[in-house]
Amino acid sequence: MVPTRLDGKRVLLTQSDEFMGPALTEVFGACGAKVIADPRALDQDPTLPATIVREAGRVDVLLIHLALPAPDTTVGEISDAEWRSVFAHLVDPMPRLVCAVLPQMRERSSGRILVMGSAAALRGQKRTGTYSAARGAQLAYVQSAALELVQHGIQINAIAQNFVVNPTYYGPHVQANAKFQERLRREVPLGRLVSGEEDALFAAYLCSDAAACFVGQIFPVSGGWVNR
Amino acid sequence: MVPTRLDGKRVLLTQSDEFMGPALTEVFGACGAKVIADPRALDQDPTLPATIVREAGRVDVLLIHLALPAPDTTVGEISDAEWRSVFAHLVDPMPRLVCAVLPQMRERSSGRILVMGSAAALRGQKRTGTYSAARGAQLAYVQSAALELVQHGIQINAIAQNFVVNPTYYGPHVQANAKFQERLRREVPLGRLVSGEEDALFAAYLCSDAAACFVGQIFPVSGGWVNR
Amino acid sequence: MVPTRLDGKRVLLTQSDEFMGPALTEVFGACGAKVIADPRALDQDPTLPATIVREAGRVDVLLIHLALPAPDTTVGEISDAEWRSVFAHLVDPMPRLVCAVLPQMRERSSGRILVMGSAAALRGQKRTGTYSAARGAQLAYVQSAALELVQHGIQINAIAQNFVVNPTYYGPHVQANAKFQERLRREVPLGRLVSGEEDALFAAYLCSDAAACFVGQIFPVSGGWVNR
Amino acid sequence: MVPTRLDGKRVLLTQSDEFMGPALTEVFGACGAKVIADPRALDQDPTLPATIVREAGRVDVLLIHLALPAPDTTVGEISDAEWRSVFAHLVDPMPRLVCAVLPQMRERSSGRILVMGSAAALRGQKRTGTYSAARGAQLAYVQSAALELVQHGIQINAIAQNFVVNPTYYGPHVQANAKFQERLRREVPLGRLVSGEEDALFAAYLCSDAAACFVGQIFPVSGGWVNR
Repeated sequence: MVPTRLDGKRVLLTQSDEFMGPALTEVFGACGAKVIADPRALDQDPTLPATIVREAGRVDVLLIHLALPAPDTTVGEISDAEWRSVFAHLVDPMPRLVCAVLPQMRERSSGRILVMGSAAALRGQKRTGTYSAARGAQLAYVQSAALELVQHGIQINAIAQNFVVNPTYYGPHVQANAKFQERLRREVPLGRLVSGEEDALFAAYLCSDAAACFVGQIFPVSGGWVNR
Repeated sequence: MVPTRLDGKRVLLTQSDEFMGPALTEVFGACGAKVIADPRALDQDPTLPATIVREAGRVDVLLIHLALPAPDTTVGEISDAEWRSVFAHLVDPMPRLVCAVLPQMRERSSGRILVMGSAAALRGQKRTGTYSAARGAQLAYVQSAALELVQHGIQINAIAQNFVVNPTYYGPHVQANAKFQERLRREVPLGRLVSGEEDALFAAYLCSDAAACFVGQIFPVSGGWVNR
Repeated sequence: MVPTRLDGKRVLLTQSDEFMGPALTEVFGACGAKVIADPRALDQDPTLPATIVREAGRVDVLLIHLALPAPDTTVGEISDAEWRSVFAHLVDPMPRLVCAVLPQMRERSSGRILVMGSAAALRGQKRTGTYSAARGAQLAYVQSAALELVQHGIQINAIAQNFVVNPTYYGPHVQANAKFQERLRREVPLGRLVSGEEDALFAAYLCSDAAACFVGQIFPVSGGWVNR
Repeated sequence: MVPTRLDGKRVLLTQSDEFMGPALTEVFGACGAKVIADPRALDQDPTLPATIVREAGRVDVLLIHLALPAPDTTVGEISDAEWRSVFAHLVDPMPRLVCAVLPQMRERSSGRILVMGSAAALRGQKRTGTYSAARGAQLAYVQSAALELVQHGIQINAIAQNFVVNPTYYGPHVQANAKFQERLRREVPLGRLVSGEEDALFAAYLCSDAAACFVGQIFPVSGGWVNR
């Protein structure tokens, strides 16, 4: 009856050095999981997702954890190159990872997939047109894929986060910025950034046996910036 | 680093014999909480919420857990008596409970309030006009109240559940009904009811120290019937 | 092929001197409707809604338009009297009006009901706990009632507005307030209040024959304060 | 005071022979607009959007109207080729069109952009993983881009439709299918498909001067399949 234990679970984490990677590695490990952490970005080689999954062996939990620094261009300056790069990092690897892990999960009629997505797909922000679009593709994919996967005993859900401490988006440099602090105070009801540990603990809960009841659900983690 | 522990926490649970009461009592107890369970309905005496809170002593977590069997009338048959009774049970006690517990939580700059609400407020259902309206009042209240409470170190959030096993709405009688089973198969992607334990474990997580980052958030628990 | 014409339509508007009443009266009239405007508040006499409907004769469109100035109390100060008064004004008359108009609409297998609701039910605001709760009841009722009414050829939908010019909530006094102007600039992407005419024209469109395809839908009108 | 008039407005419609193209051409024309209809798919030549906009001259309203038949593959069968093709049709042309039209709209401090999107981005469907993802990218882009564009006097919004008659997704073949009729009956509260004219009239309203108050808003048109 201690819910968030992940003992014996093999958790595959992609892009493990970026974004929530360090926090997820630490927290999932502390919860008893065996974290298979792969640091590579998945934007270049379309066969890499399958390779990573194959090398990982049994995967009980797949953390689709994709990131790149969000471009800061205005909507009128978005180039094909930017658009393509962001989608190559955040969007294209997602179905490849799901396709790669699906056979073994289907065979066991069991598996959990969690997409570490962004609340930028739920509420607008300036100068993030490309990034928001890519994150929007993630969440909509999760909602649809979930309806099929659940029939095979597999759950896919997503966290839609923003204002969570992490080196990729909210590193010390950003946190120290006075304008950012002002924005935090004004827009984030929590009044502080969510810690990486809080976010990772929630992810761990959602991947635990206790949380077998969610199907294609989007969970904002944003200090109240979005509520639903 | 074992997240859902509630050791030493004093949890006040209202209407403890109905709805999710038994599951919450058991799960929160197993997580180490001291559950102060009050079985009384709160629809009659407007001073009862304050009395219950006073008698409870220190309340670290308040579970605003209000229920009555949902009337099954058509929209054209809704009577004043039905409307009033449902709001008296589900809606009116809510601000009274918050007002009663607020002073002690403000004094400690700490506290957690979770409303056990309904996904019927997020998606329409036939023959539940009154019930849905009352549940809608709950969720909208939570969203607004949260913005003030967070400034005092207090978090209020809500679970918006449906298709969760519980004696008030989905007892053995309903579960055995063939038409209901058909509806479950058709409308609930999970393909089964959420168990009371799953729902209560999620509630426990949301009331734990690990989950201090949510502000006025609505968490559907409905087997995918609603996703956001 | 001129869509928003309401020629010959008899439109019953409640509480016609408050809130959006003047704008709705003018715009619906200009669109060719016969507006039956009743100025009375509906919080006192529970039989008044039925009386108003009966006196109105044929009602093609019912505008459930209920308002009272939103209390500005903090969440800890909400009294039973405030709560009851707000719900008596905004919530309780709603099912009474629907029940009263339903028989004639069912007989004609035709009718349109639009609730002039609030976006305060979709996104939190400080010091509006009671008001938000009442507006939340409205929207959730609409979603559920719609599923039954559509089977009788009747559509019920809602506008969820905020930051719209009207004498009840955003009169000249509020508009002239510097702090309010600052909030408008910061929180409302449109950068100005929505005009009463814009809101009323949208309401007119939703009540026109062109808009027979919406069922229990919530339409925010808030200058981008909420988007869904 | 006749709201949906588009007299004198120059409306650029892309992919005008597919999806809602014929209905939009007819309805916008009937409302008085000059429709500049370009039939070409935009998936191949990345410079085509700019060419189309340049050739169109003054564009008061840009209808970002992109379509291709939705693949019917299961989530485990989604190929890179399918994914790329769907995004090339539905997603990649969007920022190119916005970038191309932005300079002239900025110069006039005026302009309206409407994305004809899909409710498949708001609610899951089986066997539409790729399609839903692409449509999700559209809606999230709209929400973010809107916050910048509104500062230049330009509004971008989106319709998120489903169950609307159109040759691309709901042609006679689909409509005649017994299984589809059963799905319509069960899942779409309206009990019928939305007509192309209803959808196009709503689009026309949203592009009219009367509707200058919406910012980055997503409007479902789905017969009640989704409500928000």
